[in-house]
Amino acid sequence: MQEINIGLIGFGTVGRGLAQVLYEQQTRLEKRVGATMRLSKIADIMVESLPDHIAHDGKVVLTKDANDIFIDPEIRIVVELIGGIEPAKAFILKAIEHGKHVVTANKALLSQHGKEIFEAAARKGVEVGFEASVGGGIPVIKSLKEGLVGNRILSIIGIMNGTANYILTQMTDHATPFEDVLKDAQEKGFAEADPTYDIEGIDTAHKLVILMTIAYGTHIHLDQVTTEGISRIQPIDIDFAREFGYRIKLLAISLNHGDHVEARVHPTMVPEEHLLANINGAYNAIHFKGDMVGNVVLYGLGAGMMPTGSAVMADVVDIARDILTDSVQRVPSLSYLPEYFKTRRITPLEDLRCPYYFRMTALDKPGVLSTISGILGKHGISIESVIQKGRGHKEAVPLVILTHEAGEAAVQQAVAEIDALDIVTDKTVKIRILTNNGEEE
Amino acid sequence: MQEINIGLIGFGTVGRGLAQVLYEQQTRLEKRVGATMRLSKIADIMVESLPDHIAHDGKVVLTKDANDIFIDPEIRIVVELIGGIEPAKAFILKAIEHGKHVVTANKALLSQHGKEIFEAAARKGVEVGFEASVGGGIPVIKSLKEGLVGNRILSIIGIMNGTANYILTQMTDHATPFEDVLKDAQEKGFAEADPTYDIEGIDTAHKLVILMTIAYGTHIHLDQVTTEGISRIQPIDIDFAREFGYRIKLLAISLNHGDHVEARVHPTMVPEEHLLANINGAYNAIHFKGDMVGNVVLYGLGAGMMPTGSAVMADVVDIARDILTDSVQRVPSLSYLPEYFKTRRITPLEDLRCPYYFRMTALDKPGVLSTISGILGKHGISIESVIQKGRGHKEAVPLVILTHEAGEAAVQQAVAEIDALDIVTDKTVKIRILTNNGEEE
Repeated sequence: MQEINIGLIGFGTVGRGLAQVLYEQQTRLEKRVGATMRLSKIADIMVESLPDHIAHDGKVVLTKDANDIFIDPEIRIVVELIGGIEPAKAFILKAIEHGKHVVTANKALLSQHGKEIFEAAARKGVEVGFEASVGGGIPVIKSLKEGLVGNRILSIIGIMNGTANYILTQMTDHATPFEDVLKDAQEKGFAEADPTYDIEGIDTAHKLVILMTIAYGTHIHLDQVTTEGISRIQPIDIDFAREFGYRIKLLAISLNHGDHVEARVHPTMVPEEHLLANINGAYNAIHFKGDMVGNVVLYGLGAGMMPTGSAVMADVVDIARDILTDSVQRVPSLSYLPEYFKTRRITPLEDLRCPYYFRMTALDKPGVLSTISGILGKHGISIESVIQKGRGHKEAVPLVILTHEAGEAAVQQAVAEIDALDIVTDKTVKIRILTNNGEEE
Repeated sequence: MQEINIGLIGFGTVGRGLAQVLYEQQTRLEKRVGATMRLSKIADIMVESLPDHIAHDGKVVLTKDANDIFIDPEIRIVVELIGGIEPAKAFILKAIEHGKHVVTANKALLSQHGKEIFEAAARKGVEVGFEASVGGGIPVIKSLKEGLVGNRILSIIGIMNGTANYILTQMTDHATPFEDVLKDAQEKGFAEADPTYDIEGIDTAHKLVILMTIAYGTHIHLDQVTTEGISRIQPIDIDFAREFGYRIKLLAISLNHGDHVEARVHPTMVPEEHLLANINGAYNAIHFKGDMVGNVVLYGLGAGMMPTGSAVMADVVDIARDILTDSVQRVPSLSYLPEYFKTRRITPLEDLRCPYYFRMTALDKPGVLSTISGILGKHGISIESVIQKGRGHKEAVPLVILTHEAGEAAVQQAVAEIDALDIVTDKTVKIRILTNNGEEE
């Protein structure tokens, strides 16, 4: 049986996952691909020995030098699983330069240097697979590029970071403060020691960039995404959200307005009957709306050794099949052919219009509501509901306001004015509310 | 730009949907495929003229004779959208014989004559695409064949018939009797004049056969699927289900036990926190559990002109890409290569073990509960909860029992004995309860 040799750079969690998928599924893959996928070299500067089941095979070479992979003429596919920008970027470009196909889960890299990498790959006539970069094991990239090929994508809305969703779910179910849930998640290994990327929405923004690039056929850069995290959300916000019939989720949102497209990541109040409101724990769900297909939601584990290994494997098989049938670049890496890529204007955040949730913290004095509602009115922001609770004597109390649809620019000005009031003792928490755009019908 | 000519047999709802997708997305498709997909001939015995936007193009030929498509050397892909067994089967075999690739949404045909069709296609070296046969526009076939290629599929559980799900949802939301919802759905065009296939689970069984075939690499036949419909479900069952924390859904279920696999379609009590419990209206959702990826759920509209058109288009593009890169049969039509297909034993229904819901209708006399629970006990069926309500004087009243896990064989015997009692005035309604096998974690 024909063999396709694979070189792996980075033998951490996901790398071990891939090795395990290859090991456990080898016969099953042979029955489906008609060839043997063989892991022939692993490069990792930190690893001194291979796990028994791999070492036992006797055919896998461990090296500390990634160059051993690039110069190996037998290796056709290089899998990069070290993450981060450098040396991952240099390794990928070098693999491409050596005519190797590349598979990567590196969303940070692709969302910032994707253009350079994909252009290099196109020049060398090799493929770059990145299914594992978004939604872990969920076949989201393939679905968007191939399954929904007959659609103009009208919107992308997703829960794409399992750590942030786990934290919000725990806060919702147990009313635990953000800091405590985070600490607990770190102790259990669900959150990184430095959780900034996950909780500040940066990782979600990486993924949104990748999805927008292939959905719209345009190069989007990370800097163009408005990104807010969940660290200011408190259990009290989750309680108020529930009273109003919402759940708070960290969403990536891109609505396609034709001449401009939105690109934003922020905590969002999602109506409780919406499918995304009911995605809990470490799960991810990505909602596409296509002009032909309507609403499609893809759900699964967005991270982890084996789910991510499953997605990497799907890319490896896809490329192997192209190699075996001599049909490399059968599907353009970024869905649209490079010559049809065009620039798209990103909707300025100030132009956004949606309903808002505000939680002000104000002294419990007469006239507070009148002052605050006066400022909102002056900026053309109309109030839908108000909740004022826990009145003590001249203490700071939460004042929660839900607005009708309002403009972001007006909201920013109004909130700045409100936060500058003497009677307001803390910065206002502002959460955007998901409306029917691009939503279930 | 290169052209791929398509012949369409059957210009009904979905056929018109495909024509519309081709028309509206032509430029977008060209930018992604690098070729023009052209609908060149339409065969339909009932259609006298083409819609304006197609007629206007001036390049589409309308015929009443499908042979005009088969003998056209320019046509590479034949799309069959007439449905049913004959003449669809004859048309598909004839298209294959003429070396045409085939795309079809015909689940009834594939679930009963799939083996013959796929073997004919393999012999002629042509492809058969059937993405639209399961889950409408949801890319479920591609996800299973390619996206989850690195997995052994442990279970398939799905809501795969929009009509049945719409009826159950209406019954749940408005407590309307089955017959009234069905009549209303027929009047609104959501249900067929003859709804048997949808409400009796037959259409769902067709789809389960197709998914099992590609998930397990085995030829399953429709006859091997245990199939029960929803026509005996009443609003009272839905109310009781809710009291116990469940929703009633028509599910297709296949759990993979290794040496045998389950194949069943029946109304099922789904725990209300399970994602499938919250799939409402005409939506479909298919849940796969893979040994590597864990739980994956794919959600969207399972039928309709444009969603199905979107799925047909995905197949057309896939085949066009194989034609353009000369890589036909790059992915085996049924996921596993034909030579590796093997026979799998289907779990006999009698071997099934799960908890059950029973609604007995018994006269309100002393000793009834004792008699019935005695019969259950004799068959080793242990009771988890009982609800007895609406006691009138010697009238028949519902007696609802939830059991612990019990064997189907014992349950069938016990229910037969119970239904034979003089005090029992109507056949017992029996609904199986979904447990943790193959479920969310």
